[in-house]
Amino acid sequence: MDEKELRRLLGRLRRGDAGVDEVVGALKGAPYEELGGFAAIDHHRTLRVGMPEVVLAERKTAVQVAAIARKLAARGPLLVTRLEPGKAGPARRAVRGSRYDPVSRTLSRGRMDLPVRGPVAICCAGTSDIPACEEAAVTLGVMGVPVLRVYDVGVAGLHRLLARRGDLDGAVAVIAAAGMEGALPSVVGGLVGKPVIGLPTSVGYGASLGGLAPLFTMLNSCAPNVTVVNVDNGFGAGFVAGLIARQ
Amino acid sequence: MDEKELRRLLGRLRRGDAGVDEVVGALKGAPYEELGGFAAIDHHRTLRVGMPEVVLAERKTAVQVAAIARKLAARGPLLVTRLEPGKAGPARRAVRGSRYDPVSRTLSRGRMDLPVRGPVAICCAGTSDIPACEEAAVTLGVMGVPVLRVYDVGVAGLHRLLARRGDLDGAVAVIAAAGMEGALPSVVGGLVGKPVIGLPTSVGYGASLGGLAPLFTMLNSCAPNVTVVNVDNGFGAGFVAGLIARQ
Amino acid sequence: MDEKELRRLLGRLRRGDAGVDEVVGALKGAPYEELGGFAAIDHHRTLRVGMPEVVLAERKTAVQVAAIARKLAARGPLLVTRLEPGKAGPARRAVRGSRYDPVSRTLSRGRMDLPVRGPVAICCAGTSDIPACEEAAVTLGVMGVPVLRVYDVGVAGLHRLLARRGDLDGAVAVIAAAGMEGALPSVVGGLVGKPVIGLPTSVGYGASLGGLAPLFTMLNSCAPNVTVVNVDNGFGAGFVAGLIARQ
Amino acid sequence: MDEKELRRLLGRLRRGDAGVDEVVGALKGAPYEELGGFAAIDHHRTLRVGMPEVVLAERKTAVQVAAIARKLAARGPLLVTRLEPGKAGPARRAVRGSRYDPVSRTLSRGRMDLPVRGPVAICCAGTSDIPACEEAAVTLGVMGVPVLRVYDVGVAGLHRLLARRGDLDGAVAVIAAAGMEGALPSVVGGLVGKPVIGLPTSVGYGASLGGLAPLFTMLNSCAPNVTVVNVDNGFGAGFVAGLIARQ
Amino acid sequence: MDEKELRRLLGRLRRGDAGVDEVVGALKGAPYEELGGFAAIDHHRTLRVGMPEVVLAERKTAVQVAAIARKLAARGPLLVTRLEPGKAGPARRAVRGSRYDPVSRTLSRGRMDLPVRGPVAICCAGTSDIPACEEAAVTLGVMGVPVLRVYDVGVAGLHRLLARRGDLDGAVAVIAAAGMEGALPSVVGGLVGKPVIGLPTSVGYGASLGGLAPLFTMLNSCAPNVTVVNVDNGFGAGFVAGLIARQ
Amino acid sequence: MDEKELRRLLGRLRRGDAGVDEVVGALKGAPYEELGGFAAIDHHRTLRVGMPEVVLAERKTAVQVAAIARKLAARGPLLVTRLEPGKAGPARRAVRGSRYDPVSRTLSRGRMDLPVRGPVAICCAGTSDIPACEEAAVTLGVMGVPVLRVYDVGVAGLHRLLARRGDLDGAVAVIAAAGMEGALPSVVGGLVGKPVIGLPTSVGYGASLGGLAPLFTMLNSCAPNVTVVNVDNGFGAGFVAGLIARQ
Amino acid sequence: MDEKELRRLLGRLRRGDAGVDEVVGALKGAPYEELGGFAAIDHHRTLRVGMPEVVLAERKTAVQVAAIARKLAARGPLLVTRLEPGKAGPARRAVRGSRYDPVSRTLSRGRMDLPVRGPVAICCAGTSDIPACEEAAVTLGVMGVPVLRVYDVGVAGLHRLLARRGDLDGAVAVIAAAGMEGALPSVVGGLVGKPVIGLPTSVGYGASLGGLAPLFTMLNSCAPNVTVVNVDNGFGAGFVAGLIARQ
Amino acid sequence: MDEKELRRLLGRLRRGDAGVDEVVGALKGAPYEELGGFAAIDHHRTLRVGMPEVVLAERKTAVQVAAIARKLAARGPLLVTRLEPGKAGPARRAVRGSRYDPVSRTLSRGRMDLPVRGPVAICCAGTSDIPACEEAAVTLGVMGVPVLRVYDVGVAGLHRLLARRGDLDGAVAVIAAAGMEGALPSVVGGLVGKPVIGLPTSVGYGASLGGLAPLFTMLNSCAPNVTVVNVDNGFGAGFVAGLIARQ
Repeated sequence: MDEKELRRLLGRLRRGDAGVDEVVGALKGAPYEELGGFAAIDHHRTLRVGMPEVVLAERKTAVQVAAIARKLAARGPLLVTRLEPGKAGPARRAVRGSRYDPVSRTLSRGRMDLPVRGPVAICCAGTSDIPACEEAAVTLGVMGVPVLRVYDVGVAGLHRLLARRGDLDGAVAVIAAAGMEGALPSVVGGLVGKPVIGLPTSVGYGASLGGLAPLFTMLNSCAPNVTVVNVDNGFGAGFVAGLIARQ
Repeated sequence: MDEKELRRLLGRLRRGDAGVDEVVGALKGAPYEELGGFAAIDHHRTLRVGMPEVVLAERKTAVQVAAIARKLAARGPLLVTRLEPGKAGPARRAVRGSRYDPVSRTLSRGRMDLPVRGPVAICCAGTSDIPACEEAAVTLGVMGVPVLRVYDVGVAGLHRLLARRGDLDGAVAVIAAAGMEGALPSVVGGLVGKPVIGLPTSVGYGASLGGLAPLFTMLNSCAPNVTVVNVDNGFGAGFVAGLIARQ
Repeated sequence: MDEKELRRLLGRLRRGDAGVDEVVGALKGAPYEELGGFAAIDHHRTLRVGMPEVVLAERKTAVQVAAIARKLAARGPLLVTRLEPGKAGPARRAVRGSRYDPVSRTLSRGRMDLPVRGPVAICCAGTSDIPACEEAAVTLGVMGVPVLRVYDVGVAGLHRLLARRGDLDGAVAVIAAAGMEGALPSVVGGLVGKPVIGLPTSVGYGASLGGLAPLFTMLNSCAPNVTVVNVDNGFGAGFVAGLIARQ
Repeated sequence: MDEKELRRLLGRLRRGDAGVDEVVGALKGAPYEELGGFAAIDHHRTLRVGMPEVVLAERKTAVQVAAIARKLAARGPLLVTRLEPGKAGPARRAVRGSRYDPVSRTLSRGRMDLPVRGPVAICCAGTSDIPACEEAAVTLGVMGVPVLRVYDVGVAGLHRLLARRGDLDGAVAVIAAAGMEGALPSVVGGLVGKPVIGLPTSVGYGASLGGLAPLFTMLNSCAPNVTVVNVDNGFGAGFVAGLIARQ
Repeated sequence: MDEKELRRLLGRLRRGDAGVDEVVGALKGAPYEELGGFAAIDHHRTLRVGMPEVVLAERKTAVQVAAIARKLAARGPLLVTRLEPGKAGPARRAVRGSRYDPVSRTLSRGRMDLPVRGPVAICCAGTSDIPACEEAAVTLGVMGVPVLRVYDVGVAGLHRLLARRGDLDGAVAVIAAAGMEGALPSVVGGLVGKPVIGLPTSVGYGASLGGLAPLFTMLNSCAPNVTVVNVDNGFGAGFVAGLIARQ
Repeated sequence: MDEKELRRLLGRLRRGDAGVDEVVGALKGAPYEELGGFAAIDHHRTLRVGMPEVVLAERKTAVQVAAIARKLAARGPLLVTRLEPGKAGPARRAVRGSRYDPVSRTLSRGRMDLPVRGPVAICCAGTSDIPACEEAAVTLGVMGVPVLRVYDVGVAGLHRLLARRGDLDGAVAVIAAAGMEGALPSVVGGLVGKPVIGLPTSVGYGASLGGLAPLFTMLNSCAPNVTVVNVDNGFGAGFVAGLIARQ
Repeated sequence: MDEKELRRLLGRLRRGDAGVDEVVGALKGAPYEELGGFAAIDHHRTLRVGMPEVVLAERKTAVQVAAIARKLAARGPLLVTRLEPGKAGPARRAVRGSRYDPVSRTLSRGRMDLPVRGPVAICCAGTSDIPACEEAAVTLGVMGVPVLRVYDVGVAGLHRLLARRGDLDGAVAVIAAAGMEGALPSVVGGLVGKPVIGLPTSVGYGASLGGLAPLFTMLNSCAPNVTVVNVDNGFGAGFVAGLIARQ
Repeated sequence: MDEKELRRLLGRLRRGDAGVDEVVGALKGAPYEELGGFAAIDHHRTLRVGMPEVVLAERKTAVQVAAIARKLAARGPLLVTRLEPGKAGPARRAVRGSRYDPVSRTLSRGRMDLPVRGPVAICCAGTSDIPACEEAAVTLGVMGVPVLRVYDVGVAGLHRLLARRGDLDGAVAVIAAAGMEGALPSVVGGLVGKPVIGLPTSVGYGASLGGLAPLFTMLNSCAPNVTVVNVDNGFGAGFVAGLIARQ
């Protein structure tokens, strides 16, 4: 409820078109809906944060995911993340026209229809980083934002990245994913004058600490246009890039 | 050097207006300038990343800072960060019209003249977070971006934040600074549909681990529109917010 | 043995009703009972810490759990925690009338009959935190304390929490469970003037460090009425809340 | 503002005694007061969380502390924490009748007048833990709760603790402070059937990690009635104990 | 080779009973024997460190374990540790008279025949710590040292430990094993004037960090007679205790 | 492309043998080849870093590995690392004459033909470190560098290492692998005047932290001729040793 | 109070020579003495753990140290540790005949008169480790145990250690101190068949983590006769070595 | 003592030119010399590890440094590291012709005269990394190895590094120093086919963890020719590079 609605509501009270109880209820009432006791779906979210609620399938059963997905898909575009292939069936059947992508482990349908200003570039250091990148790409797809993929351009072979520099220059924001030493966002950040979202991945071994090593690399980037999301959080990276593109 | 310049240069070579040696030299030559042996100033940076080179005064002497600042100020807006009061004198005198701000520990002069799209909101949890916020604010000032300050609105007193919600709604991006438990970006991220830049600060004690605790809080935010910069990195937060505002 | 019993024992010695050996034995004797060599059951625990000994089923075999459970159930209320479904059968059969709950992974029977002063509220940020909450709820049930569930009220959707504020206000203590960034206890702590027990959960990914991230968030809470228990320790949270309610 | 006030306000609007603008303002208005730009004092806090706002003097100047202290003391009991001796003078002079305690580094005046149910026991392992304990004791004093001090009873000399067991038994809650290995709360928790608040201190050396070692000891306590606060957070421990005592 | 042997060898050289080549070879030769390329067995170890080489079965195949075990058993007592039940068969068959113990996961035969001075007490906090304790007990058995078991005497039920104090007093050294908060060695160390070997175990959950939490507890013990071995290293604890007992 | 090629290309442009578009394309073009969308193979790598691209099989499917291996083997020596036995079949069949080694989990064929200066010694502390060592040995084999194996010479039995000192002295570089406490490189570094490459392994338990403990040991080595690679990174250790041998 | 005293006391009660109140008081009474409110001195400690209470001067004032030292010195040998030179004066004057050693920062007087069995060897890797070693040496001196110093024998120069091997062989226990990589105890442990106490020191830089690196090295030692004390805890190392020597 | 000397010694024994005692003594005798009790100087080190012993001045007094320096300088080249300006005087005066460099904090004189094969390149990311680089450069100078400095070429401005690529190509080894995110060695490693020694520095703030962040970045480098030394360990980096150059 925004101020305009509030004023209209209070106007109705003042004019006698509404009673005190009704107004108190409206002011206290929460715009969410209970769903079988296991989840409160937040239908106002689109208005509030610019995206329908996204379903994190991890730790949910296939049946729960399907129930929530059907409910959400009835009102707008749908995005389910972290959905393992073995758990995707019920939700895919519950939402006609939905598409499951095993690389990004997402289920999605539809796209938001808001004006956007050009593509988001997604680059990654190695092929093992692609699943996180694709999660970002699908997210951007649901947000209606075009995507430029610049994959396998790790810093130990700079010419591959430099050859794709034109693609980076044309983007409104860049997502740079990397595991192991996580140096890609720093190098990309030095090449383009756009916001760069560092996306650390858990790709690596030994002292990569499950992604903490590239995460810290990115946080300490000497390029000042780099911000960072959680390890493997392709959805978050895509969502923020989409918000930047949208404005 | 962009593709247009490259084609012009090659055209001159083809027409015989330039020799091979000259072209080789131009292709290899780096657009930076050696400065007394202690720093390579990067004059192409404005074109490349949208901001003149910023001087990090930490670990430099007052004399070195002044020399670099004078050089940079001759070509555009100036920003020096992490400049302790006791070290600011020479640089301030070297750059006529510069302004030193002891809260943010910055020295600055001028502002970039690029079109921007509305203010950036900077909010923080407590008064001790203000220095980091002001570093962001001065950075945004040099980038020509207006700033809305929403200070001392920590999550343990939600009404203070909710009362300022209108200010957040009107911003194109929000910087949310917090030490201690660092919960502010999550709450702000749930209130506004804009990119939120989490700025962890080293404010806290005991198990705050010098800012690592709020840093991890922000990285794990359940609000998907939150990205994070390094601890106390107000400059980085301001710079990215400025890039978002500029587009 | 308390002072009263000691005085009675010494009185008997003085009157010649007991010999020195008997008194020495009584003073040295431990009020526990050996159980098949693998566990010492502590029957005085109810008197000492206000709760019968609780069985942590983890790392015990189904047969061991059943043997201990039967022994304990013969003397009072029973609570077994961390009991996986596949291991619950023998204990459930061994204790007639016991109830196994697969969500909280507890087996319980009966309740303590002590005066209590009103409900404990249990709130959590997301549906994945419910198992830890239910472990707390079952513990409170065995302690005879009523419970108010306020689930799925994470800080990225504040209105959901604010809508349930009345429930929080009526409680004598609040358990606030959260994984990921773990901000819920800080926000709850700012809303109610009651002890808030932060219950970090291992829900999360990437840099959530198996629950250490929300744990540190809660320890650094800017709300001073928050104390913290171990990750996923729903039993501990419930037990302390029950002690507070009881007094 | 509670529901009663809200209904009264809406009633005035309905009766025409108030205009829409006034009501909108009241609903949006935050019950805090700006103080010279550097702090927002939260006067509703007493009602909301049962304690006047407490001043954390760390990172504030002596003049700022004095200004805030005078303002707060005009409305109720005063507590300033982490106030170094060299910074205490202005605040002490600004608040007539205030008392500065160099051990706990607190400045306080007055006490709240609410019914409480018996003393809180504060025990610590060694003499170096006393400052944190005294911060808790002063906090309890401001809350009007009596305190029993059981100091220097570390677990390497159990008889000292066992000799004071009667004091622990009579308390409604126990604060157990320890640095080094931090084992005291576990032992105390096994002796008394009351909530035990573990207060880790930064006392120790080598691998004590600035208090993280005892902090983790306490979080892993095998006694289920132990909750934990941040390292050296005597104020938090005292405040929660006071809330338990008050109910 | 000790000095006596060296002198004898040099004497032979001097008398012409040995040639230079032989002496050079003897001086350079290592007293070990290659075994199928995968392990160098160290037969001088008994003389050097007072114990035959012990076989760590982890990361070895059942066949490798059996081959090494047979070789070692031909020359003295045998001890194999970390031998999973499924891998024990071949070694047990290869060494007639050997005994496999599934609790401690050891295979052993025989005992050293050296004078020892009284028993070693092994105590642990909970039943889950017993496997590590039994690894220590079997080790002590092979060293010919009698063992007193004092199990399930965690510090949250002090009376259980105090009731067994006599057993501790009679020992020449005490092994104190604990997971979770790991407080037992501190309490034991305060009760007895003997070397106490803290044996942290990986028993615990949440913030127990796989045994690092009790490890740090023990390293920070306020009882000065506590030293510490690696997590779950029952063999090391038993071996050092045996060396103390032997002298 | 090196300067000679660049001059030749520009000469052709100047002479009219090439057009501007061609030169621009050549300058921008990257010397790599797209392979079915999932990997960019870097054929210039041999010239640039002295080694054909090596395939890290981890996180790739058996089919992907085989496709990349066949492509690379067509142009020179082949090395595939981290190839589990169950995944090796297709690649082995795809590359005639290739050899799969299950200990080092490598697939290789051929060797580089460059002048080298003597052997590299590879020593390790225990038999469990052999897989990492063999990965280094196979790498050196592909680089055409002879290898001296000095295995199972841990520092707790110094005579084994001292007996092999001659082998170490004759090497141009030494790889020293160790898990557990990781002390071997320090001792080796003190014995030989050659570069020593510390190779920490994940062999160990308890507080070995998956190889971080020996990693830190090696980084803190008091022998100044020790550098370190990532945990279990036998390929990296072998590659650097090979580069040293080659020069 | 031991069993004999208890029986005598109870006998007096039985004979009427003592009243119940007296016995209750004696049983509850703790054998310690309050000292000016800031420390409870534990006079039974000598009997209980074989050493008079030792004063840790850190965090105590010079006056407090002097008062405690005088009290303790009246009853037996005295040892004060961590006593900075600037704080030693009052205590030295308070205890006639005491000796202050600035290297180990100890104040001591007298020695215990108990039978011991030969020397303890103390070895260290570098000269910077000597202060921790000397703290151990002074402790052993107070316990009446002879000491063999084997200093500056770090593992990067093995011949220095091997040349002193005879000294190690003659000891009943060895303390091995090292900072940096902390490898000394492993090497020493492989040379002698005696308990080796690893004493990590905070000597080092970079990734030595204030002594945690050598601490973890020692905990992961492949020599099974190594136990470990806290970083820089020379007193603890000496005390345990003394207990071993004494038996 | 090498085998030749051993054979000569044994030959003398055989011929009767030496007695058994003399040979035993020679075999046991360590080739070091006691220096006033505080340091054992290792004169055989040059033969053994190819470098005279280097003095780490940290934690030594100015007088101790001077005494050791004079002794060492009498036998060959001298290098003292970590020598603060205020402590350098006595050593500089004690060694005629020595040179103190305040940037690298080294004192040195002379150079070794061994054949070397070309320069070592030292590059760094920022000007703050220069002290660590110069420590490496001075070390290389003492080893007689020429140095190419490539400073201030951080990865956020790639053109600066690419412009100096020729210098890197001509080197036999490259030292790459960086703080903050530490990405330089990965990029350099991808450009040159030489051993690259990553030298992490403590330059940075926030989450750089005193140099651990760039250290982990370098350990996880995707360029396989990178090995790593300890944080700020310029001496170690230079020494290893010198050994590579020498061979």
